[in-house]
Amino acid sequence: MRSEELNWFDVENYLQQDERLMLVLGACEQHAYLSLTTDVRIPLALADAAAGKTGVLVAPTVNFGASPYFLAYPGTLSLRISTLLDLVEDLVRSAYGQGFRRILVLNGHGGNDPVRLRLYELTSALPGLRLAWYAWWTSHSVTEVARRYELKPAHANWLEAFPFTLVCELPAGEKQPPFIPGLLGAAEARLAYGDGSFGGPYLAPADVMEAVFAAALKDVIELLEFKE
Amino acid sequence: MRSEELNWFDVENYLQQDERLMLVLGACEQHAYLSLTTDVRIPLALADAAAGKTGVLVAPTVNFGASPYFLAYPGTLSLRISTLLDLVEDLVRSAYGQGFRRILVLNGHGGNDPVRLRLYELTSALPGLRLAWYAWWTSHSVTEVARRYELKPAHANWLEAFPFTLVCELPAGEKQPPFIPGLLGAAEARLAYGDGSFGGPYLAPADVMEAVFAAALKDVIELLEFKE
Amino acid sequence: MRSEELNWFDVENYLQQDERLMLVLGACEQHAYLSLTTDVRIPLALADAAAGKTGVLVAPTVNFGASPYFLAYPGTLSLRISTLLDLVEDLVRSAYGQGFRRILVLNGHGGNDPVRLRLYELTSALPGLRLAWYAWWTSHSVTEVARRYELKPAHANWLEAFPFTLVCELPAGEKQPPFIPGLLGAAEARLAYGDGSFGGPYLAPADVMEAVFAAALKDVIELLEFKE
Amino acid sequence: MRSEELNWFDVENYLQQDERLMLVLGACEQHAYLSLTTDVRIPLALADAAAGKTGVLVAPTVNFGASPYFLAYPGTLSLRISTLLDLVEDLVRSAYGQGFRRILVLNGHGGNDPVRLRLYELTSALPGLRLAWYAWWTSHSVTEVARRYELKPAHANWLEAFPFTLVCELPAGEKQPPFIPGLLGAAEARLAYGDGSFGGPYLAPADVMEAVFAAALKDVIELLEFKE
Amino acid sequence: MRSEELNWFDVENYLQQDERLMLVLGACEQHAYLSLTTDVRIPLALADAAAGKTGVLVAPTVNFGASPYFLAYPGTLSLRISTLLDLVEDLVRSAYGQGFRRILVLNGHGGNDPVRLRLYELTSALPGLRLAWYAWWTSHSVTEVARRYELKPAHANWLEAFPFTLVCELPAGEKQPPFIPGLLGAAEARLAYGDGSFGGPYLAPADVMEAVFAAALKDVIELLEFKE
Amino acid sequence: MRSEELNWFDVENYLQQDERLMLVLGACEQHAYLSLTTDVRIPLALADAAAGKTGVLVAPTVNFGASPYFLAYPGTLSLRISTLLDLVEDLVRSAYGQGFRRILVLNGHGGNDPVRLRLYELTSALPGLRLAWYAWWTSHSVTEVARRYELKPAHANWLEAFPFTLVCELPAGEKQPPFIPGLLGAAEARLAYGDGSFGGPYLAPADVMEAVFAAALKDVIELLEFKE
Repeated sequence: MRSEELNWFDVENYLQQDERLMLVLGACEQHAYLSLTTDVRIPLALADAAAGKTGVLVAPTVNFGASPYFLAYPGTLSLRISTLLDLVEDLVRSAYGQGFRRILVLNGHGGNDPVRLRLYELTSALPGLRLAWYAWWTSHSVTEVARRYELKPAHANWLEAFPFTLVCELPAGEKQPPFIPGLLGAAEARLAYGDGSFGGPYLAPADVMEAVFAAALKDVIELLEFKE
Repeated sequence: MRSEELNWFDVENYLQQDERLMLVLGACEQHAYLSLTTDVRIPLALADAAAGKTGVLVAPTVNFGASPYFLAYPGTLSLRISTLLDLVEDLVRSAYGQGFRRILVLNGHGGNDPVRLRLYELTSALPGLRLAWYAWWTSHSVTEVARRYELKPAHANWLEAFPFTLVCELPAGEKQPPFIPGLLGAAEARLAYGDGSFGGPYLAPADVMEAVFAAALKDVIELLEFKE
Repeated sequence: MRSEELNWFDVENYLQQDERLMLVLGACEQHAYLSLTTDVRIPLALADAAAGKTGVLVAPTVNFGASPYFLAYPGTLSLRISTLLDLVEDLVRSAYGQGFRRILVLNGHGGNDPVRLRLYELTSALPGLRLAWYAWWTSHSVTEVARRYELKPAHANWLEAFPFTLVCELPAGEKQPPFIPGLLGAAEARLAYGDGSFGGPYLAPADVMEAVFAAALKDVIELLEFKE
Repeated sequence: MRSEELNWFDVENYLQQDERLMLVLGACEQHAYLSLTTDVRIPLALADAAAGKTGVLVAPTVNFGASPYFLAYPGTLSLRISTLLDLVEDLVRSAYGQGFRRILVLNGHGGNDPVRLRLYELTSALPGLRLAWYAWWTSHSVTEVARRYELKPAHANWLEAFPFTLVCELPAGEKQPPFIPGLLGAAEARLAYGDGSFGGPYLAPADVMEAVFAAALKDVIELLEFKE
Repeated sequence: MRSEELNWFDVENYLQQDERLMLVLGACEQHAYLSLTTDVRIPLALADAAAGKTGVLVAPTVNFGASPYFLAYPGTLSLRISTLLDLVEDLVRSAYGQGFRRILVLNGHGGNDPVRLRLYELTSALPGLRLAWYAWWTSHSVTEVARRYELKPAHANWLEAFPFTLVCELPAGEKQPPFIPGLLGAAEARLAYGDGSFGGPYLAPADVMEAVFAAALKDVIELLEFKE
Repeated sequence: MRSEELNWFDVENYLQQDERLMLVLGACEQHAYLSLTTDVRIPLALADAAAGKTGVLVAPTVNFGASPYFLAYPGTLSLRISTLLDLVEDLVRSAYGQGFRRILVLNGHGGNDPVRLRLYELTSALPGLRLAWYAWWTSHSVTEVARRYELKPAHANWLEAFPFTLVCELPAGEKQPPFIPGLLGAAEARLAYGDGSFGGPYLAPADVMEAVFAAALKDVIELLEFKE
């Protein structure tokens, strides 16, 4: 249940019986041959699936993240890290003010990781608020699936090539992971990463992708229990 | 053509022949019986329609705006005005850095109006950048349609009740516009506005809505010419 | 009664019997042939006149506003919009801390409009505070006077040519309003606006100006009642 | 010559032959029995007098400064120090953009001292800009006058009691300077300072005040030479 | 060679022949029985050792990091994440302005990780600047040592118990790692973490600690080559 | 007793019986022939000595201050003034949250003076907090010693040449104080100040330095009593 399909009366009713919210943080950045909003689509797909099983509300997506290193790839629209932190703070405070008390942040993009620090600041400032963070590709469940299939997960390789992130056909074969010396600026990063993938196979068989998704979904559903 | 359906190669190709971009600014706020993201959906519908006719690229939507006065309505997620200004600046700078030079901002929400000031700051700072702003409901074309049908446009009344913003049935009849003394805080605003509409009929006949949309679309297409 | 003519004992006495304050927001920007501080002088004249009739206190003027588009006109001193928002917040919080509870902001400059959003944020944050906003040239009363005399109001034309904003003789005749494509940067704005007026007659007869002033003053006095 | 008496054509003409500007920083804060804007009036009087002798342009005054410690005295309107720094930066950048290259900041309030640091940042960032700072009451010339008449200068005592800062009659006699332990908060400061004066005689003979003013004016005129 | 032992002439000479700098980011936060500045001491020890072998300059340490979650432990002094980002930016820009072009940031604290994003922003903004980041405890070399000795690395356990971080005797034995649900606020974190260690043995034999240090030092020395 | 030598249990115990803290603000900037961290070392030496006599806790040092004017001297690492203010605010708030109520800020650098304004803001915001500020070289006690020995105190001259700030031999003789017109940018400041000293003798006899230190230490110990 996405809040965009609701009006405020619906959310008021929802809050009578539930105080949970899912907040999707994405990015609009190069993902090699995949959609520029791959990092929105994956956590949103997880949120939708989890909402289907739990009834937990899904807020509108944050379509932009912090991607300074990919700004030389056309189509990448990046927030300064300071902007992103303020943005997430505003959303959390808005929801808190209306009675949401357990918020699961579903992050789709590594560059958004600093948001965690702001969330720590907020959870101390807002009594009774519980926050959880899930970055699906770093979870033990997902990396375990990758290990099982002997596939190395990386930005814009098979790991993110879900049916719903494809916007064209993918190259066959594998890419040699590039050597990355230190923290590259945008221009250097484009030279180093070429097509944008961090290397490895561009594609994995459908059953692998389903296993990855299922593993992450299981995590999300469990996190939504907000165990103490 | 939305950039979310593209990868970066596609945008690079696009920039070979076009330097225009449409940026949709919305809000996630109470719209009485209408969708919480009404202010995203309307300018996005215009952007999609205009893109269909002109081929101009549409960036991912900004799903949140500045709605401090509606924060007591559940589901409203508002950005501080300072956050919103920084957010739009970051998007414009990102696009400019990749070669976009003519950006049409399609705004769906009155509270986002301060963004214009930041855009003025940016257009002076970024040589060769041209920016245009369109707030459909304030345009002469749209108010003219309203005048013709003797309907008064207002927040969350018939004016915004497009087929694609409905999420439930609307009340019949009209609402008496509330008296609003000064700038109300969120709690007072909820008391004053009740269901959230600013008054007038909740619905207009389909042909009115089509006339409104057509009038606005014509404006958008013309603005995309970026006449000098 | 301007607070600059008082000492703190006087204001303490005032607060025993009144909790109202008028805050004048102006600008220091080109106004064609008129004073650079036209946007301070007009609302200050209204404030002084209203104070004469109501005894409400007038704070020192904010002499600068957000005028990024006029920065290529010498003498224009503009605040970033973020600075202006913080400035007004600080003044409101200072006054609130001392017991002022009803503050009427008399704005003289269109570019200051974003301040309204910060005021909405503040009125939610500060219990018991009531804020009102008056931008004289946009009021129904003033536009009605203009309509009656068949004069189109615009920046730096007859509308702002009060005896107390003149600093030299004005050109006779009318100016053709310039075509303004989109949001212009400072350099482009100077080219487009030439002498700085937005067009129309430079002058109106004295009785028109008196009618405009009287209409606005009536509004101010009414707003100072802070009706609920 | 104050820029408020000019229009932009006048300033453009001025810049043909001079690139100097005086910028008055004041405060709106308790000054015991003196005007709340004493700290505006004194440097403005110096600026006006110096302008009379040199023809250097005077910008509109900054009517508010950083006075957090006096916020418990009604009528004090204080800027956060961060706001004040941004404000002054914006004014300096505006003037610099139009060709002003030698700016003398005439400060009237001790709490504004941190502005100096921001000015140092700016002078490094803006090639060819020269900035000077004058806080009249700390100058050697003024303290020398005080020494000569065996009067101790302090906030809101005789030192600031010029004819143009008086708004009521002053107490005769002297005040015992209060003991101030450390950096006091606003409430403690009001308790400690009582009527607001920092102690000493409330008044000095007219010839003392004239000598003080003349000494400061001489400094200002000399600083306007911007010797290298 | 620490810059604190030098004067500016020495650094000017250094820059004739080297453009590298090591910048130590630490924290002042609870480390169970270990020093509150454990996160400063470890990367500083690495920097000193690496400087001994390479002659690369070491800047004064940043003694505070972002530790919002530990603020309920007395002695923890934490920066807001926004402050920390600005701080590091200022240091990098200062060094860059003087000719430093290759800066290795030696981070001692996990909460400082968001700094990486600001560094990415900077490396794009400052031509010719190369930045590298080393968080010793996350390096492959160090985790490999831990794996070899079958010890699990964690905050304030054996991993950080170097001779130079001890300030009292350590408990013998192991601690059961606490269950941590989501992102805990400061008060909850103190309840959950008890003595502050994240669990596992408090101590490791001296040869383990030497192996850890040697592994990290090797990494640092290699990173100082700034290979392309 | 420096908190870096303690763990959090120790600080918790300390807070049972004392609520005082010393916070050292320094700088990393040119001091002519003296150490780049002279401004850290002097107040830290005072803090250590005062701690030895009073048992008051010393926080880790802030190793950087606001030194924009010295940025052209290699080795100077300067914070923007805004960053410094936020940094000190964060430290004070952290300590306050844990029960510290009387904080003595020992400042070693003139450019850090604006911090006082932020401290005033904080002391009003945090009930029960008492703050004191000590800038040793401006104290009456120290200037009295200088007067007694007929030595003029200035940046990087004899005044700061303690045994613990020396990093090389000092020139004999005196330096003619340079003429400084207004607020110099970094490049101009380097030209004007040459070796960096503000003039006068580079050295004073050991007994002078001891007298200076003793005078300042006496002040610090007295301030630690936080008399009301």
